[in-house]
Amino acid sequence: MPLNLIINLMKKQDVDIVFLNDPKNVFYVSSYRSDPHERVLAAVLFKDAAPILFVPALEENDARKTAEGFDVISYMDTQDPWTVLATNIKERYSSLSGWSIEKDFLTVERMETLRKHFPTATFNHNISTALQNMRLIKSEKEITFMKQAGYWADEALKIGAGTLREGITELEVVAEIEYQLKKRGVAEMSFTTMVLFGENAASPHGVPGDTKLKKNQFVLFDLGTMHEGYASDVTRTFFFGEEPSAHQKRIYELVLAAHDEAMAAVHPGIKAGDLDAVARTIITEAGYGRYFNHRLGHGLGQGVHEYPSIMEGNEMILTENMCFSIEPGIYIEGDIGVRVEDCGYVTADGFESFTNTPTDIGAYLKLMD
Amino acid sequence: MPLNLIINLMKKQDVDIVFLNDPKNVFYVSSYRSDPHERVLAAVLFKDAAPILFVPALEENDARKTAEGFDVISYMDTQDPWTVLATNIKERYSSLSGWSIEKDFLTVERMETLRKHFPTATFNHNISTALQNMRLIKSEKEITFMKQAGYWADEALKIGAGTLREGITELEVVAEIEYQLKKRGVAEMSFTTMVLFGENAASPHGVPGDTKLKKNQFVLFDLGTMHEGYASDVTRTFFFGEEPSAHQKRIYELVLAAHDEAMAAVHPGIKAGDLDAVARTIITEAGYGRYFNHRLGHGLGQGVHEYPSIMEGNEMILTENMCFSIEPGIYIEGDIGVRVEDCGYVTADGFESFTNTPTDIGAYLKLMD
Repeated sequence: MPLNLIINLMKKQDVDIVFLNDPKNVFYVSSYRSDPHERVLAAVLFKDAAPILFVPALEENDARKTAEGFDVISYMDTQDPWTVLATNIKERYSSLSGWSIEKDFLTVERMETLRKHFPTATFNHNISTALQNMRLIKSEKEITFMKQAGYWADEALKIGAGTLREGITELEVVAEIEYQLKKRGVAEMSFTTMVLFGENAASPHGVPGDTKLKKNQFVLFDLGTMHEGYASDVTRTFFFGEEPSAHQKRIYELVLAAHDEAMAAVHPGIKAGDLDAVARTIITEAGYGRYFNHRLGHGLGQGVHEYPSIMEGNEMILTENMCFSIEPGIYIEGDIGVRVEDCGYVTADGFESFTNTPTDIGAYLKLMD
Repeated sequence: MPLNLIINLMKKQDVDIVFLNDPKNVFYVSSYRSDPHERVLAAVLFKDAAPILFVPALEENDARKTAEGFDVISYMDTQDPWTVLATNIKERYSSLSGWSIEKDFLTVERMETLRKHFPTATFNHNISTALQNMRLIKSEKEITFMKQAGYWADEALKIGAGTLREGITELEVVAEIEYQLKKRGVAEMSFTTMVLFGENAASPHGVPGDTKLKKNQFVLFDLGTMHEGYASDVTRTFFFGEEPSAHQKRIYELVLAAHDEAMAAVHPGIKAGDLDAVARTIITEAGYGRYFNHRLGHGLGQGVHEYPSIMEGNEMILTENMCFSIEPGIYIEGDIGVRVEDCGYVTADGFESFTNTPTDIGAYLKLMD
């Protein structure tokens, strides 16, 4: 499907060849997922010939099994991959001038190398935007995978909540979550698991360490799991204690209100920037605007840094099956950090969350019941 | 130190400005380590003015604390980072024409954006190679960090060996290793931990799953830890059972001989390709050459995919304080996979390993004593 869309676009733009080397795009068009590190992995698409999947020799068997309809071509570590690839391309076409490349991923060095092998080529077209836009709208299958990733993120929160006791360290909680997940077959997190106690959560780039948990602190969990190549992302700030202080309660309820109002405001047709404003206005009018120092959310899919960006000034109109996070927060250094985050997708008339852990300030005690 | 070397190079090449946006290079020159994801993080160096460290607003405080001698400039998510950066650069210099860029990292899109802001700039110089060469030779401090990372890799193998029992799954062993490490304060692995049983180890891109361990199988561990931003990397193939078969023994001893001979052959002055040949000749002459289907080793430092590449045909001369892995292997699909790997650095007259877990076929039993 993605392949047909790209080929139609090639015809419209009079592009001869599309060169993809972002592993996420290669996966998207070929179903073959791999992290080639510094080696070359590429999908090369033509208007009217079978596409090429170009992989290191070590991966040839895996690639053949997965990438239907692709000519799998491989190279040894001792060969110059660009020469092998160029030879194979030239065998198919003697003249290819209009190239479309991933301008947001292709390095200057690789472009210069391609130019050496194809001196008459032009690299004017940028396929990145088209691919971003295609990947922005998830298929039913992708949404099914993301729901499952969300399920495991909720489970991870349950596991994390279950470990909390006075004196446990942040890193021990992280260890326990990932251990229990792996034992249940969930091998990969979608990013480094964050568990931060009390004021540590006020540093947006805090790192779990050996801080020990005390009574009546907030515990911020920010985590996600991968399922079939798709990510989830959830944040809960659990109150560990009997009764939050008035200050703790005020900050929490404010963040939660911003979260809830933003979730309720999603519908096809709303602009990303306007959705950010729904949450931001609530926090700003309460006088905490400068402590909400990041965008409301980010797209997710194969990773947690996709489009759409739910950010002030973003004019993008949200439409059905776009997937993103909603995650307002308030961070006051040396004092308190609270964030509540869910991820989900735009439905015909609203927003359905992939993550469903309770959000109220008593959520921790509920999970412990 | 790195800064001075780069500035000398700028003067020699008549370069006005060096633009770095690879987080590893930014760390190398500024000591500030961060993963900016899709945001912009950059170090901008001038011949005769204080360098700029350009970071997202969220990171400003951390950056100031770390990057001595740098002007820290930050931007909000709602600002266009390139406009902010260009304005700041132009305030310092009205005319900057010769740019040196990281051709192996900078994307075509970012170069085009820079070109828009600096229409008279040329981007002919490539700072990537100079930085690779500088990073190739580790300082005493870097080597100290890598020794510590190696220590933890050895500990991880001990933990892994301790979990082995009939019926345990690969993923359970991975979970246990990372759990115990995190409990001891080691938060970050240098890559996805590999634990593969029996013939699973014959797939060089095998992924730990729910395969259960049986008696008289090999267990391949390939793992590493991060310490202060530096990586280790070790592989052991432990025999789990009483007595290996003649076939198992033959393959193992062959790989071990290749490993040992290569370790012993390292000295300042040997070419990377010749070192590869030492190990490859042993395996090839025994008739298993085609089953050793990857290079002998790779450089390591901030990651496990640096220079030097210990590979057939690489003419690079190895010199003191270069760090790399030595990891011959034999992989026969559906049958057996064995690899023995250590990482270390070139000394005045040889090679000192960062990892020191026993390598003989009885090593597992020794660790269990």
